[in-house]
Amino acid sequence: MTVSHERPVLSAEATATGIDAATAAVRRVLESLLHAGSSASDLSGIALRLNAIADELAQQAPTVDDRIADMWSGEGVTRHDPVTGPENAIAPPMPITGLPDGSVVGTVTLHLPYQGPPGYVHGGVSALLLDHTLGVANFWAGASGRTGELTLRYHRPTPLFTELTVRGRQTSVAGRKIRTEGEISTADGTVCVSAKGLFVTPRPEHVRFGRG
Amino acid sequence: MTVSHERPVLSAEATATGIDAATAAVRRVLESLLHAGSSASDLSGIALRLNAIADELAQQAPTVDDRIADMWSGEGVTRHDPVTGPENAIAPPMPITGLPDGSVVGTVTLHLPYQGPPGYVHGGVSALLLDHTLGVANFWAGASGRTGELTLRYHRPTPLFTELTVRGRQTSVAGRKIRTEGEISTADGTVCVSAKGLFVTPRPEHVRFGRG
Repeated sequence: MTVSHERPVLSAEATATGIDAATAAVRRVLESLLHAGSSASDLSGIALRLNAIADELAQQAPTVDDRIADMWSGEGVTRHDPVTGPENAIAPPMPITGLPDGSVVGTVTLHLPYQGPPGYVHGGVSALLLDHTLGVANFWAGASGRTGELTLRYHRPTPLFTELTVRGRQTSVAGRKIRTEGEISTADGTVCVSAKGLFVTPRPEHVRFGRG
Repeated sequence: MTVSHERPVLSAEATATGIDAATAAVRRVLESLLHAGSSASDLSGIALRLNAIADELAQQAPTVDDRIADMWSGEGVTRHDPVTGPENAIAPPMPITGLPDGSVVGTVTLHLPYQGPPGYVHGGVSALLLDHTLGVANFWAGASGRTGELTLRYHRPTPLFTELTVRGRQTSVAGRKIRTEGEISTADGTVCVSAKGLFVTPRPEHVRFGRG
């Protein structure tokens, strides 16, 4: 998280070097492989080269427990989560910014890996973006909790290949119950998917939970 | 889709060669990079090697329109979707099987790329798996539609690193409205997340929609 901007960026900012650059390259491979398809040449050679890289990395990997402990220090999940994380090639990634009114906004353009119906975003991917954005909205508003219930309404198909805006805002806090809303819209303001979430603040004895 | 089995596999089956093997290698790189973290050696060299592969693939890629048309022939989305697709490195992938009672079941073990809270599955990833599984359940039951509304209830954190079962079943069809339910549970049958979906069969004039 970076709060030095006038509009604070609530997700980790990608750098052009190191693991962020390597992760961006994985995204390029992931997307270009899906785009090229099964007729691409020398796929077995490409698999060998990729597996060699995976082997090199796996040899250097700490234990999972050590890695998780490391992940949650510093910027915490924001470097690793599957929506905004610059170190997670599953993430598009979508940067999320906090607005002065207490709400948050993310912008993202999705390509073939996130496809559901032909040319449109997978409904479950929309759910993933909204669930995450509502969680960040809670953080930005100052009262967070675990997701208890999330309801998504699909108003119209969400297009690939065009910039989408994903908004989230906390609407109420009552005791341990937090209510938060959001939506995905296109550049002209058309809402494609909306979401309402109920989040529950953990009781004090449940605040910390590990891999158990 | 393969229907030659006693329990039909409703997702595409991965082969050990060609694009499926290359995609599996991308998954290994994606996961091992996230696991190794920023202290891994020669990350700039790895980025160069990955970008070279992406460049080779991008040079062979057809237009997006041609690729989408190709994707939707044959096995259709099942080779490419972000949940079950053996050609999509974002997919874990989770195979889904049809049961004789009309319901479907998927099994999957999720690793670090799908993390939300420390050691647990991201709530939005659970939503993605359930949305997709409910859609496959509709296909298997013989009446499909677009997702109108999806409600997820989070009962307890869903663990990473252990086999999860994702079930879906159609519960009613009334006119154009289809209701479908499902849940994610651990090996001992504990339900972590449950879902209820309302799907709407398109009117005939809306059955076909392209990238428009």
